[in-house]
Amino acid sequence: MKVSVPKTNQPRVIIIGGGFGGITLAQSLKKQAVQVVMFDKNNYHTFQPLLYQVATGGLEPDSIAFPIRQIFKKQDNFIFKMAEVESVDPECNILYTSLGEIEYDYLVIATGSRTNFFGMTQVQQHAVGMKNIPEALDLRSLILQSFERASNEQDLEIKSTLMKFVVVGGGPTGVETAGALAELKKFVLPNDYPELDMRQMEIHLIEGGDKLLGGMTEEASQNALKALEKLGVNVIFHTYVTNYDGTTVETNTNKAFDAGTVIWSAGIVGNVIEGLDKAILKGGGRVEVNRMNKVTGYDNIFAVGDVAHMATEAYPNGHPQVAPAAIQQGGLLGKNIGRILKGKELKPYIYYDKGSMATIGRNKAVVDWKNMHFKGFIAWMMWMFIHLLFLLGFRNKLVVFVNWIWSYFTYDKGTRLIIRPFKKLAPQQKEKVTA
Amino acid sequence: MKVSVPKTNQPRVIIIGGGFGGITLAQSLKKQAVQVVMFDKNNYHTFQPLLYQVATGGLEPDSIAFPIRQIFKKQDNFIFKMAEVESVDPECNILYTSLGEIEYDYLVIATGSRTNFFGMTQVQQHAVGMKNIPEALDLRSLILQSFERASNEQDLEIKSTLMKFVVVGGGPTGVETAGALAELKKFVLPNDYPELDMRQMEIHLIEGGDKLLGGMTEEASQNALKALEKLGVNVIFHTYVTNYDGTTVETNTNKAFDAGTVIWSAGIVGNVIEGLDKAILKGGGRVEVNRMNKVTGYDNIFAVGDVAHMATEAYPNGHPQVAPAAIQQGGLLGKNIGRILKGKELKPYIYYDKGSMATIGRNKAVVDWKNMHFKGFIAWMMWMFIHLLFLLGFRNKLVVFVNWIWSYFTYDKGTRLIIRPFKKLAPQQKEKVTA
Repeated sequence: MKVSVPKTNQPRVIIIGGGFGGITLAQSLKKQAVQVVMFDKNNYHTFQPLLYQVATGGLEPDSIAFPIRQIFKKQDNFIFKMAEVESVDPECNILYTSLGEIEYDYLVIATGSRTNFFGMTQVQQHAVGMKNIPEALDLRSLILQSFERASNEQDLEIKSTLMKFVVVGGGPTGVETAGALAELKKFVLPNDYPELDMRQMEIHLIEGGDKLLGGMTEEASQNALKALEKLGVNVIFHTYVTNYDGTTVETNTNKAFDAGTVIWSAGIVGNVIEGLDKAILKGGGRVEVNRMNKVTGYDNIFAVGDVAHMATEAYPNGHPQVAPAAIQQGGLLGKNIGRILKGKELKPYIYYDKGSMATIGRNKAVVDWKNMHFKGFIAWMMWMFIHLLFLLGFRNKLVVFVNWIWSYFTYDKGTRLIIRPFKKLAPQQKEKVTA
Repeated sequence: MKVSVPKTNQPRVIIIGGGFGGITLAQSLKKQAVQVVMFDKNNYHTFQPLLYQVATGGLEPDSIAFPIRQIFKKQDNFIFKMAEVESVDPECNILYTSLGEIEYDYLVIATGSRTNFFGMTQVQQHAVGMKNIPEALDLRSLILQSFERASNEQDLEIKSTLMKFVVVGGGPTGVETAGALAELKKFVLPNDYPELDMRQMEIHLIEGGDKLLGGMTEEASQNALKALEKLGVNVIFHTYVTNYDGTTVETNTNKAFDAGTVIWSAGIVGNVIEGLDKAILKGGGRVEVNRMNKVTGYDNIFAVGDVAHMATEAYPNGHPQVAPAAIQQGGLLGKNIGRILKGKELKPYIYYDKGSMATIGRNKAVVDWKNMHFKGFIAWMMWMFIHLLFLLGFRNKLVVFVNWIWSYFTYDKGTRLIIRPFKKLAPQQKEKVTA
């Protein structure tokens, strides 16, 4: 079966993925004489930096997602297909999808990344990732279900385990999630669950390295650590998680942690599609590309964003897997495809570092920007401004802004709903060792 | 196992259900010397009148739901249990739940109603109801999936079926849903799906009786009919649906309708709990109560709202199953339980008819209020005001208001997301009859 797409005389550019890279690329092809076909398994673009707020009851899922068709409703050369991509045949220029096969002239892989459990299947089974909206909603349900269950649990050991949380990975997602959980503990849950002793709630943040926010300045790391510890988060360095059975987190040190909920933000791996030469896979499961985002060994296949591994002198292990890099690469590739069509020389990508930021708790953040460092309330205002700026859709910006202002003044989180309960069996009572 | 609830010297009032009736009752017991225990299978209260807007992409699910624990965070004599109620043993005053058993002094059934498919199992399997948030989200996914599928379908018969909608039942839910679908057809879907011929989209509203909005005035019915027909909805009277196999809706007349989506709003049935004498079940599967909401045959069991069948001279077939009746009964029962405790005589319920209203499309409504009838824009403003008034939570009111104003000025529906795809197999190609 063939994917139903009109035939034109123009070259067809297929983009796989409607994240930051794919969206920006498609937009920059608006005036080019090409047919743009985008595939995504979802009908919406997800603003991943705010998933942690969905998971912790601060935002509705609908306000950090935006329908892809709506973004392009005024772009005539754009066609959207909601489908799963299965594989590519680079020799015949054919893409195989759940809707059938389709030929391309240029193929762009903008598939992003997913949670990397580093092959630990038991961890994958019991811990929760946070890379898409269903995962964030599952986590929200799990957090609330844990407290509902704790308030009825008569086994004191299980009750206490249900109130313990381990966040794995001290990057922005881990730091922001731990901070949001600490806020729930301080302001929201004591009112909701007067029957529980909230001092029993513990939040552990486990980081393999020796600092938080590894990509940021030493100052940012220190300030984030101070702020998290002030909120009551127990930060542990130099520690790797080796297993989690739904009840106990084991680590490479002799320390183990009981926890009913484990949030895994310790790494990502590129979403590579089947059919490409495996030899071009680099660190983090990424596809090797040159400075023009062309995939090594192919003339008409490109990759942008998290899934692309572009090594340069400044970034020998590939560029940072962040939204600005994806946006910049998508925009440049659109122009470069225009240059290809005109027979012009392509321009190489130069990463423009827009700085980094992370929030901690309700009104603090750390921001690194052009050799400057900001912290506290002013950094939090900058964080809000930048996130609203990049969030797609004016309605979304407005609703998110209303929610933030609301939370700021009321100390409340509005959306503590268990709409689809999450099925997690553990924690169970541990087997008692009989002497 | 026993439900873990502290023992006090005060009588225990158990309320099953956190809808309008249960919530108002629990609130009116705030100052009484009783222990209030509420059971609900969800941790949130649902504002059912706006479910149709969630289903048609106009509102986030989170803004029409409100966490029950938050409503009562300042009420010391209130305990919430998220659990399913299994049955009651009225002789021993014991309620059996998924959390174990619990004794009560007074039991109040406030379980509301669910969709009534009148025993038609095939209809139940293929049509979608709209009585709770997961159902509304399933319907939203199904509507959008139908268009995604239609835009790739190569069998023209299936393609056309996917774009046909049948709404069954001409009450407020049916009228409002049909109007919202017509709006999607007019303003939103043509932009989203330029590859589809939207003239093929059909919306049929099938009603068994001879008028829309049966409980309202003749004027309201006529105005609603005119407004719907102007929006392009095909309204059919005197027709009952007898079957739906996922592709074709059969009726008691010789007319059949192909439709990929059937929305069932043709009737409700009370959510009765097991263990009560079956002889007290009245029309619509409701529990017979007296004017004080006491269930016939039991001294300490009450029922309020949709599940209660209170027959009076003015309402020989029971009171209207609407929010105001549930709220009024819940409030009065709280006071009456206070009177029981003080040995005073109970006051009978008198229904105060607050009027009825329904919206049609984006800026029209019909309102019956105290012998007056309003229509058009002014009625729509009244409709918005009343719905915002009864929606729980200031954050919710604000977010819903922002969405409505946004939709009004932009003709847009912001939340067209397929977050959890709905599994529906049909429509299938019909078997060709070979001569």
